[in-house]
Amino acid sequence: MNTGFDKQSAAFKKFFNGTGNMKTIKVGMIGFGTIGTGVAKILTQNKDVITKRLGAAVELVKVADLDITTDRGIKLAPDVLTTSAAAVVDHPDINVLIELIGGYDPAKKFLLQAIERGKHVVTANKALLAKHGDEIFSAVAQKRVSLGFEASIGGAIPIVRSVREAFVANRIQSIEGIVNGTANYILSKMSDENCGFDVALKEAQQKGFAEADPTFDVEGIDSAHKIAVLTRIAYGTSVAFDDITVAGISSITSEDIACAREFGCRIKLLAISKYDGRAIDIRVHPTMIPVAHPMANVNGVLNAIHVRDDLMGENILIGHGAGALPTGSAVVGDVVEIARNILAGVGKRIPAASFQSEEIRAVPLKGIREIESEYFLRFNVLDKPGVLSTLSGILGSHSISIESMIQRRRAGSGEGVPLVMMCHKASEKNIQSALEKIEQLDAVCEKPNLIRVEK
Amino acid sequence: MNTGFDKQSAAFKKFFNGTGNMKTIKVGMIGFGTIGTGVAKILTQNKDVITKRLGAAVELVKVADLDITTDRGIKLAPDVLTTSAAAVVDHPDINVLIELIGGYDPAKKFLLQAIERGKHVVTANKALLAKHGDEIFSAVAQKRVSLGFEASIGGAIPIVRSVREAFVANRIQSIEGIVNGTANYILSKMSDENCGFDVALKEAQQKGFAEADPTFDVEGIDSAHKIAVLTRIAYGTSVAFDDITVAGISSITSEDIACAREFGCRIKLLAISKYDGRAIDIRVHPTMIPVAHPMANVNGVLNAIHVRDDLMGENILIGHGAGALPTGSAVVGDVVEIARNILAGVGKRIPAASFQSEEIRAVPLKGIREIESEYFLRFNVLDKPGVLSTLSGILGSHSISIESMIQRRRAGSGEGVPLVMMCHKASEKNIQSALEKIEQLDAVCEKPNLIRVEK
Repeated sequence: MNTGFDKQSAAFKKFFNGTGNMKTIKVGMIGFGTIGTGVAKILTQNKDVITKRLGAAVELVKVADLDITTDRGIKLAPDVLTTSAAAVVDHPDINVLIELIGGYDPAKKFLLQAIERGKHVVTANKALLAKHGDEIFSAVAQKRVSLGFEASIGGAIPIVRSVREAFVANRIQSIEGIVNGTANYILSKMSDENCGFDVALKEAQQKGFAEADPTFDVEGIDSAHKIAVLTRIAYGTSVAFDDITVAGISSITSEDIACAREFGCRIKLLAISKYDGRAIDIRVHPTMIPVAHPMANVNGVLNAIHVRDDLMGENILIGHGAGALPTGSAVVGDVVEIARNILAGVGKRIPAASFQSEEIRAVPLKGIREIESEYFLRFNVLDKPGVLSTLSGILGSHSISIESMIQRRRAGSGEGVPLVMMCHKASEKNIQSALEKIEQLDAVCEKPNLIRVEK
Repeated sequence: MNTGFDKQSAAFKKFFNGTGNMKTIKVGMIGFGTIGTGVAKILTQNKDVITKRLGAAVELVKVADLDITTDRGIKLAPDVLTTSAAAVVDHPDINVLIELIGGYDPAKKFLLQAIERGKHVVTANKALLAKHGDEIFSAVAQKRVSLGFEASIGGAIPIVRSVREAFVANRIQSIEGIVNGTANYILSKMSDENCGFDVALKEAQQKGFAEADPTFDVEGIDSAHKIAVLTRIAYGTSVAFDDITVAGISSITSEDIACAREFGCRIKLLAISKYDGRAIDIRVHPTMIPVAHPMANVNGVLNAIHVRDDLMGENILIGHGAGALPTGSAVVGDVVEIARNILAGVGKRIPAASFQSEEIRAVPLKGIREIESEYFLRFNVLDKPGVLSTLSGILGSHSISIESMIQRRRAGSGEGVPLVMMCHKASEKNIQSALEKIEQLDAVCEKPNLIRVEK
């Protein structure tokens, strides 16, 4: 068994023959930003809880960051902080390396180096796992070390552990989630206060819920990273990240939100992954969900993840998806899991990718035009006789049937009036063809708008 | 390390030197009722999923039940079924024993025998763990075997795994849950269809959601079993089951539900456990929660569990709390967890009670009169001047302040009119004293009704 260090090494002897009674798991961390500070605080302030449950101590022996002078409100011993990542990666006593610098490089390099040196690794880096997952997961499998990434999705929500362990006998059919707190805060704000996207974004930035450049969050890229990682562990496959259909919330208007309300729905940025046994339908886009759905009331910075499978029906997990302490607690949870393995003398116990390496299969992704969904459509049309008949005729000829329709009052000074409708399940291909034709009509004043609906 | 069998035994040799390439974990089960049938179906029908993830097969080698003739829609090999529990408990090849007979005896005897023989055990028996937890958890700790009981609380909801592993660094402050699907179905029905308790119960029985004798479910006893077990693993203590305050839903009227609605609330049977670092407030009773709370929309047979702690704020898990396949999938998840330990050559890896044995402390329980809560009060009073003033005077003199009040129309043919109010946080002792005084008033026609409120 590979326990992360050579049994003849000095580190091993020190670990098992320490002078104190309490065994200590030595941990190194690269990246001392928000989450890193959370981890350091948890390991210090909640040391007693961790020790009482693990039966050993977890000690942060080296922390690397380019900035080691800023006061983060947490005191580390003077020899712990370093500006050298190599001092952590190459440290002979460290069994577990926590990577919290984020981004692709140099995070990837350090993570692979640590794995190569037989260290177990814990990361919150969804971007890296989504883009370079194949390389990282296979390195981990080959070196028989553990990879913890609970913190990379849904902060404190135990979704990775649930999919990888609790739902181990289950054929997962779909995972759908509100996995970006920034986007959810903005949509909740727009809905509660009837304000536009720009106003809500500005407030989110002022409150620290959105970054100065919010692109990754509001355009759905961060959500796509997370659903790519979940797809891997749910179905035993890898996902070509660039093939995921991604649409963000910057095009959502207060008008859309008001319409959703009239149809008894709320708009959420959903990350969706469905597997029918043949192909995977994976996408991120604003989605209408009925108010009675438990996820419809998950507002503000909360996240929620809905899992459906063949055995348990559905399971929904709701919690804080970001923040130093929630995300830090997920990191420490992973560290403790690995620490239990080390204490038991075990290397890798659970395959990082949830499936044994040799069972991982390529599964084709469905193009967005191959999916089926229910749809909300919003048109801006001239208020004259025959328009509705022409429009519904085109929909009908594309096998799209209208469930309900509302002709709304004229909004603003434009020449058209909004016409909104909810359609029964239809194929995206048909919807897109119909919308192209409808867009050509003289009576249609602007490009029709579509929001997919999940019930 | 104790892997559940002696390394020199025939079972060990057979396991590690089997002729096939695939290792097999041998499992025995006592109790072949609803959940047992679910487990057998999952191990058969989802064998491929389990094997692809575990890297080994899980085989049900012996199943004991008093009835081995009923067709359960699942075919087991003829030598698997037996009427002798001893044939399972004493079976030399079995590494993991699943106990699904329920109740105290003989379940306890078989479980302890299996533990004594070094077998790992998995159970869905919350009654047993709540009442005889000290004995079972200490036997498990002493023999260094694993005890899985995910299926005992919330069916498919991974709450035990989350508390024991994901939230391992967290100081848990409270757990509140809708943990009985029967009671939740009845309350949802009463709310949706404006019917009385008896009508809703009858329908629940007809649909198979309530047993012929529904006492355990509707009177809160089953919920109390579950919160007792959760309390143990959340705070590292044991709970004297009989000291838990338990009230069921059979006294809830359509009037209460209508009042709750008027105050923007729903009534749920909540199991509550709060720990302030000094004492534990543990109780089960009908509770009003605001409609905007994510648990308020958890209806029908769904369960929901809300965890609050010092790091992640709140986490809510929602899912099916009962049923052959949901509960069966939790059992199999536990079996696979143990199987991973056996494959890795490890015995006990995580303390069953979540805390190391030597860290478990006695913590006093708060009596119901020591708690503080917000309260909904319903009085039936004569509709004459001065009544409200007398009544609110008594409340005020007990430091109870009224948040809002509704004088409802006369219901039925009684002489009084309903007067309902929502009170700010107050001490239960004061509320009880005030109600005793109010009950004595001539203008009060019947015993006042109290429902606690959680926000």
